[in-house]
Amino acid sequence: MGALDEGHFNVELKGNGVKLGGCIELGFEEERETTVAIEDAVKVLLQGLGEDINREGLRKTPLRVAKALREGTRGYRQKVTDIVQGALFPESGLESGIGHAGGAGGLVVVRDLDLFSYCESCLLPFQVKCHIGYVPSGQRVVGLSKLSRVADVFSKRLQDPQRLADEVSSALQDGIKPTGVAVILQCSHIHFPNFESAFLDSNHRGWVKVIVCSGSGVFENDKADIWGDFLSLLRFRGINVEKIHPRDSDDKCWCPSQAISKMGATNSGMIAAVASILRSLGEDPLRNELLGTPTRFVKWLMNFKNCNLEMKLNGFGLCRLDAVRSNGNEGIHSELNLPFWSQCEHHLLPFQGFVHIGYISTEGVNPIGKTLLQSMVHFHGFKLQVQERLTRQIAETASSLLGGDVMVVVEANHTCMISRGIEKFGSNTATVAVLGRFSTDPVARAKFLESIPNSATAG
Amino acid sequence: MGALDEGHFNVELKGNGVKLGGCIELGFEEERETTVAIEDAVKVLLQGLGEDINREGLRKTPLRVAKALREGTRGYRQKVTDIVQGALFPESGLESGIGHAGGAGGLVVVRDLDLFSYCESCLLPFQVKCHIGYVPSGQRVVGLSKLSRVADVFSKRLQDPQRLADEVSSALQDGIKPTGVAVILQCSHIHFPNFESAFLDSNHRGWVKVIVCSGSGVFENDKADIWGDFLSLLRFRGINVEKIHPRDSDDKCWCPSQAISKMGATNSGMIAAVASILRSLGEDPLRNELLGTPTRFVKWLMNFKNCNLEMKLNGFGLCRLDAVRSNGNEGIHSELNLPFWSQCEHHLLPFQGFVHIGYISTEGVNPIGKTLLQSMVHFHGFKLQVQERLTRQIAETASSLLGGDVMVVVEANHTCMISRGIEKFGSNTATVAVLGRFSTDPVARAKFLESIPNSATAG
Repeated sequence: MGALDEGHFNVELKGNGVKLGGCIELGFEEERETTVAIEDAVKVLLQGLGEDINREGLRKTPLRVAKALREGTRGYRQKVTDIVQGALFPESGLESGIGHAGGAGGLVVVRDLDLFSYCESCLLPFQVKCHIGYVPSGQRVVGLSKLSRVADVFSKRLQDPQRLADEVSSALQDGIKPTGVAVILQCSHIHFPNFESAFLDSNHRGWVKVIVCSGSGVFENDKADIWGDFLSLLRFRGINVEKIHPRDSDDKCWCPSQAISKMGATNSGMIAAVASILRSLGEDPLRNELLGTPTRFVKWLMNFKNCNLEMKLNGFGLCRLDAVRSNGNEGIHSELNLPFWSQCEHHLLPFQGFVHIGYISTEGVNPIGKTLLQSMVHFHGFKLQVQERLTRQIAETASSLLGGDVMVVVEANHTCMISRGIEKFGSNTATVAVLGRFSTDPVARAKFLESIPNSATAG
Repeated sequence: MGALDEGHFNVELKGNGVKLGGCIELGFEEERETTVAIEDAVKVLLQGLGEDINREGLRKTPLRVAKALREGTRGYRQKVTDIVQGALFPESGLESGIGHAGGAGGLVVVRDLDLFSYCESCLLPFQVKCHIGYVPSGQRVVGLSKLSRVADVFSKRLQDPQRLADEVSSALQDGIKPTGVAVILQCSHIHFPNFESAFLDSNHRGWVKVIVCSGSGVFENDKADIWGDFLSLLRFRGINVEKIHPRDSDDKCWCPSQAISKMGATNSGMIAAVASILRSLGEDPLRNELLGTPTRFVKWLMNFKNCNLEMKLNGFGLCRLDAVRSNGNEGIHSELNLPFWSQCEHHLLPFQGFVHIGYISTEGVNPIGKTLLQSMVHFHGFKLQVQERLTRQIAETASSLLGGDVMVVVEANHTCMISRGIEKFGSNTATVAVLGRFSTDPVARAKFLESIPNSATAG
């Protein structure tokens, strides 16, 4: 075992007071106990949300959440040495002339690695576009895929972007012993609206982004010329050097949960349950960065509490009256790109995207106004959901508001499609509901579908 | 076990005369025997290429290839029922009015799933962008990730695009019993230049592409209106309906290996080795579609035979003379986007991309001509390589042709980064070599790097 062994890992763990110690690989029995402990905690959370844990869609949710969390934090149980060992290959440098290449001094860059990690501030997954450069030395190079695998070990832990970049960079420096390592991460965190503010402010859009970098060896000085070469090879990737988050910034944590408003009393049983999940994953809930995490996660979750629904229901009843008055020329109208947030009831993970509503109206205008439609969308989004049901519920409500001829398309990015074994990063999902004339008239459907703009779901 | 059990799989296997029968899961011992058998076959291939199988970079190549092939064909050992079972959820349809949504008739589309598969015609991996739509019935929907997982089972076999689409579509139809399933695959296969033609024709570029579709239930009729809805939701993805490959086309197989020229005697020991690999994976080398596969794979491989190098070496010697004559104004010049193909010696898998060469010259023109530089790039590409070494070798040869001040950037897509456990689809790699003044002058480097266009490596 070299410098990149569990020393680094153990020091970090000890520093954080985590008790895993040297026991990295859990036995089958321990594995099962951990899973059961997380399941029990998830049941507490579901009950705190006012849900029936025996309802069909939720019955296996605790197990699914436990498996996803274990899988998503497997980096705590992986050793970097196992990955790098045996993947260092001798490559001679340039044979003649002054210069650098091959196994000596020629920059190697692997770009656009898709990763995800869990935010230590709120427990939600965030996406990472990772770029790694290193300058070989000692006439040896590392197998290209190992750069990705090492980054993966550290991303599969509870993280903060800067720490993730620092850990990847120093683990590669220790493991490959190159002239230097540079890491740039483009991180995207789902926006964190709360139930109240979303109804007031429909401009909240998808993602909070941050770019961080870390360097070791010749990259340690961030003014070094070699950074220029590295950044040149990352052009066209939306990396604005000016916007790289300064390490010593006084900015508060990037996680939008830090700004979440106080919203009444929080359920101490739920908070204790989240703390027990942290312990089950091998973390220490008393580590400084994790102190408020259970509370923040519960606050996020409570946005999707079932009984929040009643609150707004009356509003819709009133508006139905307006929709009846209509005459004039019939036509297909649409309200496009209404943002929504929801929580997948199968995995307790957010999905987020846009709703497009088409309707046939004798008036040229939306009889009830875009703002009310947006509120209706949030109304159905803010609970534990599946996208198919959300689409149907929006269509039924829209039908009562806009007349019976309604078509609804929901386009969404599902965190559960990236943050588990499946890891299908670019994928997204569209669901359709048709009511009235739209169900029998393909031309009407086509006309509405054509009006939907591209990339509504793009991060 | 429902209709989507191994019946489908066994029938297919029996039809192909494969002897796996009901024994899908191999025991540890059998697993080890299979791996060793593939390793032995790979050693025969390496020796046939004139390589020393004990050389450092190649020592573990047989094991790496065996593991990658086993992993990449794990679909032969997976059951679709295991995936879909327990992931069907009750969802009611629309409660009022005429229409479709939720668990009854509302289209559900999962888009942009990245997959890879192995081409049954040549054994090289190909990339797949997969889009799946289905119309729920019986008031039940399937967990969204299961669509991806089922597609993955069939992609992890030796495949042809149309068959892959058909198998995914019929497995989902059998497993979910919906009103219908639609599958569209955008497949990209690495181009298959042979050593001879690449030197003659530098217009050969990256990828051979094909779009296929398959439908069942309401999608069985490809003129059905519902196809219009599905395709509308796939707009902006470069799917030109006109270009969907007709199922009953007389076109020969899409795989470029089918058009490869005869190139002398082939090594019967190598061909037998590939046939034994097919058997180890659970396939039948006598299945119709696989009959020529070992020969085609060996022909591809022989492009990268070590001794091909000698053949062209003299050509470069002659040209060096030209490069000396130069005077006038000094400046940084570049030859950009020189395509190359090479074969990763760690995984016996192709990597492919573009070479950019910068040099400082007192003349305003490339003293030896782009064609010769292109030949030099092919010369170094067509062997078992690692990208770092390729970059260094090109730089050293370019230095002797263009004067001592040379900078080389190689940008490549590595099949080994997508077609194994790692599956980092969008990633690509840049390597840099600098010689002479470029190694000390960051401004010269920056000027050359800025001249490199975007997306040279894009598929």
